[in-house]
Amino acid sequence: MAGDKVKLLGFWGSPFALRVEWALKLKGIEYEYLDEDLSNKSSMLLQYNPLYKKVPVLVHNGKPIVESLVIIEYIDETWKNRPLLPVDPFEKATSRFWAKFIDDKFVPLIIKMSLSTREQKDKVAEEAREILKTLESSLNTNKPFYGGKIIGFVDIAVAWIGIWAPLLEKIINVKLLDEEYMPLLNTYFRDVLELHIIKECLPPFDKLLAHYKDYHDRFMATKY
Amino acid sequence: MAGDKVKLLGFWGSPFALRVEWALKLKGIEYEYLDEDLSNKSSMLLQYNPLYKKVPVLVHNGKPIVESLVIIEYIDETWKNRPLLPVDPFEKATSRFWAKFIDDKFVPLIIKMSLSTREQKDKVAEEAREILKTLESSLNTNKPFYGGKIIGFVDIAVAWIGIWAPLLEKIINVKLLDEEYMPLLNTYFRDVLELHIIKECLPPFDKLLAHYKDYHDRFMATKY
Repeated sequence: MAGDKVKLLGFWGSPFALRVEWALKLKGIEYEYLDEDLSNKSSMLLQYNPLYKKVPVLVHNGKPIVESLVIIEYIDETWKNRPLLPVDPFEKATSRFWAKFIDDKFVPLIIKMSLSTREQKDKVAEEAREILKTLESSLNTNKPFYGGKIIGFVDIAVAWIGIWAPLLEKIINVKLLDEEYMPLLNTYFRDVLELHIIKECLPPFDKLLAHYKDYHDRFMATKY
Repeated sequence: MAGDKVKLLGFWGSPFALRVEWALKLKGIEYEYLDEDLSNKSSMLLQYNPLYKKVPVLVHNGKPIVESLVIIEYIDETWKNRPLLPVDPFEKATSRFWAKFIDDKFVPLIIKMSLSTREQKDKVAEEAREILKTLESSLNTNKPFYGGKIIGFVDIAVAWIGIWAPLLEKIINVKLLDEEYMPLLNTYFRDVLELHIIKECLPPFDKLLAHYKDYHDRFMATKY
């Protein structure tokens, strides 16, 4: 909308900020991107997200919206072009269910996995693979994306796993996206991450790897 | 809508099933309520919610919707009378934020609190009070409810706390809804729980107390 001021407070290495960037790009919304130094958060971040002090925050004409999935729904309801969620209430509920499923079930496991000992890791990785297998089961084999022929809310919510799972596999030496166990999901991630609009927002893999490896090593040095 | 078949798979002692009952009653939707025996779940529950095997499940014309907040949004989008969420996208996002805040921050604490030792309990109770104080801060002092003059999505999402907090206070002897520390929130819960439509779905407090006390005692006997 003309005259709109849209700011995104993000962090280049955050998959949750990436979700919002994808939504903005898909809608063709112009926005100013402000990258946060998470070890020295800006006064803007603290002001706009005093409860969580986390990225992403979308600031639209001075009003802050936080929580990546809440932000994406806000974007979808405010800019009506190129819908991200289905119109049908049942399909909409199903989309919300899967996005929530990943946030509730997969995200805690990858955090737990990356911060635990060798013995615990394998057990947690096993659980995480089961979650991904379940996510795979919800793919419609006749359609390339969760959104159908084009990507939508669920794709935006889960595509980061196609990058962050291999990242974690390298850092802590576990198997997550097992090609034989979940061939469809592997194909899906390859396809979705090849889309121009998805690809152009992705940080370089090596930069992500160095960042998360460093974070992981420093944590393990303090803890064990 | 004429000819609609609506079933709710619930459990009389579940605050999450209660949320859905409130939404259905507020909309004036006719539904069949099926109470689950959680120690011997029905084949219908296992069929309709194979991933979580939990209540509530709303079955609308044979289609299952799970997760209480997802269900309430579904209800609001399917039956347009008596809106539960605000129309304005920013207010809608704010409502979603607060409902999610309670589910992400308060619910895990009350579970943790009820299953921990005396020493841990007080620490967790302190955290839980801070969450409630934050919830209080989002009340508009000029309006009786989160929804404004009438109750809406956030009220449906949080009103159960006005029953379950005193319940927990009795069972494990902690202070949660401190009257002096959060006078507004205490007034709010009193008011919202006095509403006819909210009150009529509430199970008797003594029955809830007996149920949760038994559950708690049995857990503690196995664990400690």
